[in-house]
Amino acid sequence: MPPFRPSTRAFRALALPQSYAPRRSLQPNFFTPRPRRCMSDGPPKPKRDPLEEWQNPKPSKWPNRIRLLTLPFLGAIIYSMYTDRTVYKADAPSIAEKDSVLKRENGVSEQSPMRLRMEQFIKQHQKEIVAELEKVDGKKFVADSWQRPEGGGGISCVLQDGNVFEKAGVNISVVYGRLPKAAIAKMRANHKALDPTVDSLEFFASGLSMVLHPKNPMAPTVHLNYRYFETADEQGNTNAWWYGGGCDLTPSYLFDEDAIHFHNTVKQACDKHDKGYYPRFKKWCDEYFNNKHRGETRGVGGIFFDDLDETEKDQEQLFSFVQDCLSAFLPSYLPIINRRKDMPFTEEQKQWQQLRRGRYVEFNLVHDRGTAFGLNTPGSRVESILMSLPLTARWQYMHEPEKGSREERLLEVLKNPRDWV
Amino acid sequence: MPPFRPSTRAFRALALPQSYAPRRSLQPNFFTPRPRRCMSDGPPKPKRDPLEEWQNPKPSKWPNRIRLLTLPFLGAIIYSMYTDRTVYKADAPSIAEKDSVLKRENGVSEQSPMRLRMEQFIKQHQKEIVAELEKVDGKKFVADSWQRPEGGGGISCVLQDGNVFEKAGVNISVVYGRLPKAAIAKMRANHKALDPTVDSLEFFASGLSMVLHPKNPMAPTVHLNYRYFETADEQGNTNAWWYGGGCDLTPSYLFDEDAIHFHNTVKQACDKHDKGYYPRFKKWCDEYFNNKHRGETRGVGGIFFDDLDETEKDQEQLFSFVQDCLSAFLPSYLPIINRRKDMPFTEEQKQWQQLRRGRYVEFNLVHDRGTAFGLNTPGSRVESILMSLPLTARWQYMHEPEKGSREERLLEVLKNPRDWV
Repeated sequence: MPPFRPSTRAFRALALPQSYAPRRSLQPNFFTPRPRRCMSDGPPKPKRDPLEEWQNPKPSKWPNRIRLLTLPFLGAIIYSMYTDRTVYKADAPSIAEKDSVLKRENGVSEQSPMRLRMEQFIKQHQKEIVAELEKVDGKKFVADSWQRPEGGGGISCVLQDGNVFEKAGVNISVVYGRLPKAAIAKMRANHKALDPTVDSLEFFASGLSMVLHPKNPMAPTVHLNYRYFETADEQGNTNAWWYGGGCDLTPSYLFDEDAIHFHNTVKQACDKHDKGYYPRFKKWCDEYFNNKHRGETRGVGGIFFDDLDETEKDQEQLFSFVQDCLSAFLPSYLPIINRRKDMPFTEEQKQWQQLRRGRYVEFNLVHDRGTAFGLNTPGSRVESILMSLPLTARWQYMHEPEKGSREERLLEVLKNPRDWV
Repeated sequence: MPPFRPSTRAFRALALPQSYAPRRSLQPNFFTPRPRRCMSDGPPKPKRDPLEEWQNPKPSKWPNRIRLLTLPFLGAIIYSMYTDRTVYKADAPSIAEKDSVLKRENGVSEQSPMRLRMEQFIKQHQKEIVAELEKVDGKKFVADSWQRPEGGGGISCVLQDGNVFEKAGVNISVVYGRLPKAAIAKMRANHKALDPTVDSLEFFASGLSMVLHPKNPMAPTVHLNYRYFETADEQGNTNAWWYGGGCDLTPSYLFDEDAIHFHNTVKQACDKHDKGYYPRFKKWCDEYFNNKHRGETRGVGGIFFDDLDETEKDQEQLFSFVQDCLSAFLPSYLPIINRRKDMPFTEEQKQWQQLRRGRYVEFNLVHDRGTAFGLNTPGSRVESILMSLPLTARWQYMHEPEKGSREERLLEVLKNPRDWV
């Protein structure tokens, strides 16, 4: 084992496991997917030495300016963008440095800091989900990994123009950085553990984000995001921490049995932890994923929550809750996509789906706080943020569905969210 | 001539000339354009009595709640949305009432208030532009007229899925209302004539807005908007007033000669009034129509200006400037659309256009202040605001044009705006 290289710099790259291969150089083929390593290609290679990785970083197609300040997808860890780029001098090692040593020397166990456990958990699930979706689609995802010199990075797995999915993105990000005073003050509204007197605080943010847009208009779009955030004091001890996330279903053609199955599966995961969670987070979801300018929800909902910290339950209980929620994804969605992906449909139904895709774009670009924040922040990784957008969308002036049609019924449900369980 | 009906209500519908026919009831045909009156259909019918119109309003498909609070397109008169819905008691007639009487009794001349002259001017130009675009396309626009009970209304002319235009909207709006104190305080930053001590102020806003998205990827999208705003004191005298507007060109495939012709025509209109206008408003345009998150302008620009009031030039001079700008539109765009509309193109070039359409959507939904303000305001006429969006758009993860290609050159120009004249 090579020795850890000491440094006065507080920020250090967190080596990503080699099983997530680095991006290959881009082929200039116009509109042709580039051959890149897939998540499910063969067994993982042996881990590369983080020190060597730090000393000889791999080339990337992203300009340094952009790459080094890359941002996670869909607001999962939007707070990373508060980080300023000053290099801080710190006597104690940063949590990024500590975590790097801990992982190398001890691996990850139930005794590890929550940061490492969450990272391990989302990486595992990214692989599992990608593998299952590849079975459904028949095509492979391509994986892009990116790193931040301040610590951490991410892996974007994308399947575009597949057999089943028009566009599917399953992303994780694991980011270390520093929050400036202004950001701390803002976050303190929800987290009193944050010390308002310090100039800056080290933070950690990690999450898994996913959006799947199927081709068949009978198959619903699904979105999911689970994230963990914490700050450390100057000694590197955990200060404030919280979980956020949720998942929601967006059909173009509503099959009640799909909405019922999706909600039931999510509710079961919630009920294991607190009977109050599902009703509370279902309502929060309907309120958040709402195209207010149209007076309709984005889809038939699911759950949404944020800022769950020690005032809610203890950390172990909340981690277990988030684990169960994420683990419920495949059982909640696979039966739906499998029964809808090969259904017959007409050209008119495809166009209705395209109009609904337009509404999805409207929500994500106009109302989604994470997307707006990311896009308005210089240096963000736009391609990861906008991976949530569909491949194609449509806007038609004054379109109105026929009276009594399935399209009209969907709108009625979106205007008046229903209870599905 | 029927007598004007006196009323203690300060707000009154401004009767729109009958030549702009009201919307017919909607046909429920799925995806079929509904047969409606076209702008260029035959001679105008005789004017209907405004009193009768007010007493027996025509039925509309818009729910009252929505219809009565309709909003203009693309921020042209976004300030109308500050209006609260209280009915104010006023001893003096409102400017809407005054204008209604003036128009009926005297018509519109150079001695009329600027409100009436601007209204007449944009209505005339809407007809002219629609007629010329119909000649280019071969298909007819459909006209929707809408009214506000507080005074004023608008006419949206739309051509969707035409022979030449994928989607074309030419809209006017003429709106009367009241600004609450908060809105006055905000506007005072640019217009010191506004009295900050009053609780509310009557206002007038009118404008013509247009977006044309051609089908052929060699033909550029064009956007234009010219608007006039004023407030009145309690005696109905003009208080503050200003003009805003501009036009800009958004090609998917850049033909330098098109950009040069467009900028030259606009520059000539500017130069007639002030040699400093074109360089100043060209720069403003490049700065405003900018997808900052991508580091690229929306297109190759044109001009953009706002808040031009008595501190700039007198009202007659500015009106004349805006008239020349709007009159320059057809000469600036018709030669371009005529030489591009029938050019051959490949499927790949069509897809590149669709990706550029996606960027257009990003600008309008993420950065355009007027659109965002409109969509976030309850009761806005969403269909008019979002008429600016293309019929179809595309988002492709990590798309990059081939080295040395025309697509790459366009991006270079968008990243580094050029001087075209």
